[in-house]
Amino acid sequence: MKYFAKIKYLGTAFHGFQVQPGLRTVQGELNEALNQAFGHPCKVTGCSRTDAGVHANEFCLTVECNGGTIPADKLPIAVARFLPEDLCLFYAEECDDDFHPRYDVKEKEYLYRIINRPIYDPFEFGRAWFLSRPITDEGLERMNKAAECFIGKQDFSAFMSEGSDVTDTVRNVTALSINKIGDLIEIRISADGFLYNMVRIIVGTLTEVAFGRIFPDEIREIIASCDRSRAGMTAPAEGLYLNKVIY
Amino acid sequence: MKYFAKIKYLGTAFHGFQVQPGLRTVQGELNEALNQAFGHPCKVTGCSRTDAGVHANEFCLTVECNGGTIPADKLPIAVARFLPEDLCLFYAEECDDDFHPRYDVKEKEYLYRIINRPIYDPFEFGRAWFLSRPITDEGLERMNKAAECFIGKQDFSAFMSEGSDVTDTVRNVTALSINKIGDLIEIRISADGFLYNMVRIIVGTLTEVAFGRIFPDEIREIIASCDRSRAGMTAPAEGLYLNKVIY
Repeated sequence: MKYFAKIKYLGTAFHGFQVQPGLRTVQGELNEALNQAFGHPCKVTGCSRTDAGVHANEFCLTVECNGGTIPADKLPIAVARFLPEDLCLFYAEECDDDFHPRYDVKEKEYLYRIINRPIYDPFEFGRAWFLSRPITDEGLERMNKAAECFIGKQDFSAFMSEGSDVTDTVRNVTALSINKIGDLIEIRISADGFLYNMVRIIVGTLTEVAFGRIFPDEIREIIASCDRSRAGMTAPAEGLYLNKVIY
Repeated sequence: MKYFAKIKYLGTAFHGFQVQPGLRTVQGELNEALNQAFGHPCKVTGCSRTDAGVHANEFCLTVECNGGTIPADKLPIAVARFLPEDLCLFYAEECDDDFHPRYDVKEKEYLYRIINRPIYDPFEFGRAWFLSRPITDEGLERMNKAAECFIGKQDFSAFMSEGSDVTDTVRNVTALSINKIGDLIEIRISADGFLYNMVRIIVGTLTEVAFGRIFPDEIREIIASCDRSRAGMTAPAEGLYLNKVIY
């Protein structure tokens, strides 16, 4: 039996999604919980890798289980008692054998949360990027102007960290929105796929635009340069959430 | 110099507000941070005691400091670098020597957060009471009916845990509201003061009303009985927030 499932996790105490020997990972904890729920090993395939400290509001995956006897709608409850408190599986359905949770993704949405205030909020620790320097209304306007330049099918290699073996660096960014709600700035980015650290470098670059270190007009040039050193800093992992996966 | 200040903390990793030898407490961490910021010991007096695991969105206190040389408006920033991530001091002003942060309280508001859904939310762990059994609309209606009975100046000893040396058990509850926003139920209670565990026992009782184990009509009798055994269970600490203090 093959299940399509959705999970949610607080990434703070995980070394990312993918199993790594000796480290606490989301996949590792899932494997163990499914093992206990089914009584034998299952194969978990994720929609994406996420880095250490990155969170997921919705991360999709498949569970392949020989002789799985748990009905899909009962899987969330069946596995809940074996999962740690920072991880839940909240949805499952049966799926076709040829469905692939990574290759079949049409679009993913990431959310990046920035808390912009002089004094930290203890309830947001590890859940947002804390920026004490104020982003003004003008800064926000510049960010919005810069954001438009990312839309479209472009080579985003200037916004990719080293350490990835990807050769095709063209991605189609379909939406990039910036919302300010009090002290919280929410940046949402949708694309057909993302390069390594792409969202975090885009967010880092947008904040440098806010602070006037990069001009909105430069963004198109930076993209065209395919030169990582021209883009801004990589924003920290703790503000990043995989938010939605569309098939 | 005497400062009036407001702090905010995630209670999960604290053994409550008040200093206890050998345990991590809010007051203990504050003392240490103020010590470092001022270069000598200060005296911290809180508006209330909170139990282990209880949070505060707004907790008020005074800081007394001989020869304090930090202007009040600079205190939050000055102390921030010495405070741990689960605690912040976000407001300070100078106050009169005879102001007392506990005796001068006119009203306090507590917030209690319940997450009511079959599968746990990892982002709410330690920050709400997770109730998997659904509270129906009828249950919510019963809770609201019961809530009205708590309003007014009454002897609340049926809603007090043992282990307190309070002799006057009359308190004036001025407001009790229940709001459901999706899976989240927020209960807010305001009073001129609260007995030991009073909010948690009221919330526990209200959920038993929701589930039909106590009828709304019984609440007045239970209050009048002054008998703790007739009220409901004590709801867990992790859902409770000191939310507002009025002077």
